[in-house]
Amino acid sequence: MRLLVVNSNTSDSVTARIATTARDAARPGTEVAAVSAPFGLPLIVSRADWLVAGPATLAALAAAKGSYDAAVVACFGDPGVEAAKELFDVPVVGISEAAFHAAAMLGRRFGVVSFTAALRPMFEECLARNGLASRCSGFRMGPAFAGDPGRVAEERREMIVALCRAAVEEDGAEVVILGGGPLAGLAPAIAPSVAVPLVDGTVAAVRMAEALVGLAPPGQPRPRRARGLTGFEPGLTALFAG
Amino acid sequence: MRLLVVNSNTSDSVTARIATTARDAARPGTEVAAVSAPFGLPLIVSRADWLVAGPATLAALAAAKGSYDAAVVACFGDPGVEAAKELFDVPVVGISEAAFHAAAMLGRRFGVVSFTAALRPMFEECLARNGLASRCSGFRMGPAFAGDPGRVAEERREMIVALCRAAVEEDGAEVVILGGGPLAGLAPAIAPSVAVPLVDGTVAAVRMAEALVGLAPPGQPRPRRARGLTGFEPGLTALFAG
Amino acid sequence: MRLLVVNSNTSDSVTARIATTARDAARPGTEVAAVSAPFGLPLIVSRADWLVAGPATLAALAAAKGSYDAAVVACFGDPGVEAAKELFDVPVVGISEAAFHAAAMLGRRFGVVSFTAALRPMFEECLARNGLASRCSGFRMGPAFAGDPGRVAEERREMIVALCRAAVEEDGAEVVILGGGPLAGLAPAIAPSVAVPLVDGTVAAVRMAEALVGLAPPGQPRPRRARGLTGFEPGLTALFAG
Amino acid sequence: MRLLVVNSNTSDSVTARIATTARDAARPGTEVAAVSAPFGLPLIVSRADWLVAGPATLAALAAAKGSYDAAVVACFGDPGVEAAKELFDVPVVGISEAAFHAAAMLGRRFGVVSFTAALRPMFEECLARNGLASRCSGFRMGPAFAGDPGRVAEERREMIVALCRAAVEEDGAEVVILGGGPLAGLAPAIAPSVAVPLVDGTVAAVRMAEALVGLAPPGQPRPRRARGLTGFEPGLTALFAG
Amino acid sequence: MRLLVVNSNTSDSVTARIATTARDAARPGTEVAAVSAPFGLPLIVSRADWLVAGPATLAALAAAKGSYDAAVVACFGDPGVEAAKELFDVPVVGISEAAFHAAAMLGRRFGVVSFTAALRPMFEECLARNGLASRCSGFRMGPAFAGDPGRVAEERREMIVALCRAAVEEDGAEVVILGGGPLAGLAPAIAPSVAVPLVDGTVAAVRMAEALVGLAPPGQPRPRRARGLTGFEPGLTALFAG
Amino acid sequence: MRLLVVNSNTSDSVTARIATTARDAARPGTEVAAVSAPFGLPLIVSRADWLVAGPATLAALAAAKGSYDAAVVACFGDPGVEAAKELFDVPVVGISEAAFHAAAMLGRRFGVVSFTAALRPMFEECLARNGLASRCSGFRMGPAFAGDPGRVAEERREMIVALCRAAVEEDGAEVVILGGGPLAGLAPAIAPSVAVPLVDGTVAAVRMAEALVGLAPPGQPRPRRARGLTGFEPGLTALFAG
Repeated sequence: MRLLVVNSNTSDSVTARIATTARDAARPGTEVAAVSAPFGLPLIVSRADWLVAGPATLAALAAAKGSYDAAVVACFGDPGVEAAKELFDVPVVGISEAAFHAAAMLGRRFGVVSFTAALRPMFEECLARNGLASRCSGFRMGPAFAGDPGRVAEERREMIVALCRAAVEEDGAEVVILGGGPLAGLAPAIAPSVAVPLVDGTVAAVRMAEALVGLAPPGQPRPRRARGLTGFEPGLTALFAG
Repeated sequence: MRLLVVNSNTSDSVTARIATTARDAARPGTEVAAVSAPFGLPLIVSRADWLVAGPATLAALAAAKGSYDAAVVACFGDPGVEAAKELFDVPVVGISEAAFHAAAMLGRRFGVVSFTAALRPMFEECLARNGLASRCSGFRMGPAFAGDPGRVAEERREMIVALCRAAVEEDGAEVVILGGGPLAGLAPAIAPSVAVPLVDGTVAAVRMAEALVGLAPPGQPRPRRARGLTGFEPGLTALFAG
Repeated sequence: MRLLVVNSNTSDSVTARIATTARDAARPGTEVAAVSAPFGLPLIVSRADWLVAGPATLAALAAAKGSYDAAVVACFGDPGVEAAKELFDVPVVGISEAAFHAAAMLGRRFGVVSFTAALRPMFEECLARNGLASRCSGFRMGPAFAGDPGRVAEERREMIVALCRAAVEEDGAEVVILGGGPLAGLAPAIAPSVAVPLVDGTVAAVRMAEALVGLAPPGQPRPRRARGLTGFEPGLTALFAG
Repeated sequence: MRLLVVNSNTSDSVTARIATTARDAARPGTEVAAVSAPFGLPLIVSRADWLVAGPATLAALAAAKGSYDAAVVACFGDPGVEAAKELFDVPVVGISEAAFHAAAMLGRRFGVVSFTAALRPMFEECLARNGLASRCSGFRMGPAFAGDPGRVAEERREMIVALCRAAVEEDGAEVVILGGGPLAGLAPAIAPSVAVPLVDGTVAAVRMAEALVGLAPPGQPRPRRARGLTGFEPGLTALFAG
Repeated sequence: MRLLVVNSNTSDSVTARIATTARDAARPGTEVAAVSAPFGLPLIVSRADWLVAGPATLAALAAAKGSYDAAVVACFGDPGVEAAKELFDVPVVGISEAAFHAAAMLGRRFGVVSFTAALRPMFEECLARNGLASRCSGFRMGPAFAGDPGRVAEERREMIVALCRAAVEEDGAEVVILGGGPLAGLAPAIAPSVAVPLVDGTVAAVRMAEALVGLAPPGQPRPRRARGLTGFEPGLTALFAG
Repeated sequence: MRLLVVNSNTSDSVTARIATTARDAARPGTEVAAVSAPFGLPLIVSRADWLVAGPATLAALAAAKGSYDAAVVACFGDPGVEAAKELFDVPVVGISEAAFHAAAMLGRRFGVVSFTAALRPMFEECLARNGLASRCSGFRMGPAFAGDPGRVAEERREMIVALCRAAVEEDGAEVVILGGGPLAGLAPAIAPSVAVPLVDGTVAAVRMAEALVGLAPPGQPRPRRARGLTGFEPGLTALFAG
């Protein structure tokens, strides 16, 4: 199968890193293509960022339409993902929903660990939106971080391990989700120091996307009304035109 | 005070109708300006529509920045409103959140009535997102409607009155929200036939926006990071640039 | 318009302070009258206090019936407010419900800050009763306080600022409600030290009451059954008599 | 043990009926005394009624203080019960909370059946306030009833049986609560026609009150502050005086 | 009445201790018999333990069928209790559900205190399953404990008192449940040091079981289908055979 | 990979049917083995059935330990699945949890359709236990069914299609789960008549199990305490022995 991975921001270096993680996670026979958002922002932090990243994500999906059997949106908060599920006839999975659902199948209670308290509101809202708050044993986040996100996984590695252990021992987590892009790839490195499975969102999303292809008969074709979208680039406009 | 009313879709006839309702609802001394979204869709129905209407709403708000003391986003579902609260230093209120909050202060339990079941999922999600589901006594919607939305308030007037009465008598509603753009302006006409207050979203939003101006000291200025947004028109790009 | 502010306890000095805050918050053209409860308790702390303050609040509202277009009940916990909404044909707004609804329109997540942990249960129950718990980012309360409530805003000012900052930085609050009568009037003084809007219940209630006057057509007159109330003073008895 | 049953309204004929049910439900060795509210209303229907019935209930409890080991408040909605738990050193149980808790121990899912839809909002709010909504399989209520409440149990007996059966067969109720004063005493009569246990609130409250006497060591004496209550009769004033 | 107390594990020394507590809690006229599970595990800790303890509990109940009017399952987490409510025609009450319901009738908010954080997940899940999470003011647990459970009530007595006080003073608990088998019997000893009632699960369950006998008319006999259970001992097989 | 499918009841004919569905759903390279429960009941209907089916499911998993990389428990209600997640080092997925999680990734709101109202309580409880109730648009069940379950998919096919359409058109379902063993295999047959994807639990569980193998690094080995289980067959006893 052909899997498209969309990075919802415009930073190609991040896209390259995500592509590597996705290819490592994919099964033999899955071809992974990865693209950056064709427009938008270099980094997604706030709700406003999330909003403009949504059409950018849809545009990336529209541009490659027909070339993939499933797609992963690799940006915590899953911008554009609910809209994409309406607009595309193939499964589109966000990395945060995939992390929550996979964790919930690996254990009864999952903890969420990340390197900075600043991400907590976004994670909490995303969890609530997905409906799985009752499965979460709690959040464990580091203090404010002002350094280079690209190095935080290294600089705060000891702290992340300690937060994971607190999630397990004090909160009763049976699975831990490592949240936030900068921690991608950290799970295998620290797994020997933590007593429960560690879930990475990109890995989870690749696996869930593979699983959903062909899982459900799609039903009768949904009629699409032609809609006159203006102000966006041609691919997105064509998508709304039906 | 100066109030900007943004219609999140591109239909100027709808904008004109909303402007009339808003001006009627405003207090003396409130100047109302109304604008359509500068781009986007002529009608907002789905989650995908909602998503692209968000940046369009932000663009309308950005274009007039500095010319208003508060803004109302007049589109059920409140596209772009949460992002706008982050980006602008004046109150921005959506018509659905305003309807829910005003109704909750007018009575303990509010019902939601609209002319077609097709709107129910959007209303339910919007209510849940606002956190007020426990205050709602239930939804009462008419059957599928394939006619002209501009005439539904007239054609289904008897049905709407019957739905309002069922909300009161069977569900225990103490206030009823008339939901959906096509029912704007209907409240005063049918009020004599219904035993509880009837809330119109646009009216509620105008009043709430007026109330919020100056209600809370804004606190120290929030630092804005300059962000390089691409792919949108200049006003929105300037807004993200800080 | 004419606004009646009812202090649900019998302490006239508190009533005077509330009246000042209410007058400052009111729009030009709003005439503010303030009254103490005609009987009851000098201070409302417990659920039992809340219960006896309810009829006292209704009696104050009944005594002035016809002389106001809207009323504010200025006592955290909103004693008698739900009953008043049933009994009076004008809007009656409590300061806690107003604070919650206004904060929810100013930002996605609001924190609640007060000077003593002893108030937390009452605040939590009031929040839950209003249905907005999912919008609250958390409570930040000071330790037990045994001093003069009239001086706590001064004595614990630094602490309150620190609690507000923790609400913003650690809990992700985008708005902060300053709860509890003794903190009334503190918001403008500490606003320059806090990065988000600060909501005061009395101010919020005055603004919401103004907004609700005429917002919704009242519907057909509700039939009132004459009820033979005994054991209360004549005004309240007359109110139940229809 | 000595059990006081308080009817929160002033109708002595209702008190007599409740007393009979309570005596039948009590264990040997339990002495049951029953009193009407010393003031207030002849019937409790609305939230305003509930509010004024609260101090009346407290006054009844205060007047007999020292003469009972536990008390039952026999009025659906449990007026004054939360305040009474604060003010008295003996268990005070409301008939609605008792019905919910007893039903929840008799089966996983309980239905609530009553003779008129008009009671549904009050029942739903009371259930939510007690926190047990997730245990309820649903409400089944008859249509509006304009006849003599004293005869509804007889006139609508067939309907009540049908509603109980629907609760069991369609909603999966494993226990059914018969709600509303006019249905008191109906349970044994219709039990042979229904396949699950039927809970009557007064019976449940008598049993729960008996069970709570001495169940928990009371802890160190709670300090009571002397409070200057005015405007109520002497017994209630004395109660607040500590 | 005759009450059977089932210890869901196979440790007779624990059964003896539970029997003493139950006899002390029972009313005059209640005959208490206590039995261990006839098979299973010596200690119940995990969800897997809970699962195998369920049939063992049913087997104990089946073996004594006809010799008791109500039963208590004395194992936190209430293994087998929901199934027992289906299978037996007499009330069967678990100690955790009884503690939650009794505490909820003794006060508005109950805290849960135990000696080790390791029990928190099980307690939280049990509380959620019973539907009463909104009544809980919070958990206060000691740190990990590696010593002899039989001595923890003595060794950590000071800590337990401190946790109870924190539950009252910081969380607003009005009742405290002492959770976990090893704390059985501690309540009377520390009550003089705590300002609110202390609930012990075994005591609560005995009282609730007594109260439920005869509380609700059982309804028409439920038809039982004969079921061919294999792999369990004869008493349980006979129970499923109808 | 090697996948074990456990039918939690003892009916080999059902096991054979499940095995066929599972093999059809599996990817190339997945070897599917299917076994019946080694003891227990021929059909799982009630909570008591569910309870005894739990150890039987664990016994089946224990007997084949080491011969599979992941397991599916094919019985609605997922008996033993939470315990199995604790006891085994490979992913174990229940068909109901898999259906809920897969449906939640295919669309925002999923409906649940089955042939008889008798299954609704079990489905609702299972959904609540999994935490995903807020994602469900509602249940649509046929009336009581007394015929041969093996033929219900054929006999009620028109009804099931109508229920699916009502779920989509009236409740706003974007995905429909066909619940209950007797409907297995129906999805592809009726898909052309329904406008949204149709999820079958067994298919979903096979796909989810495949996806979870290797998804998360397992962390450091969990220490297992040797536990002396009695009264069960040797395989289960050995499992608890560590």
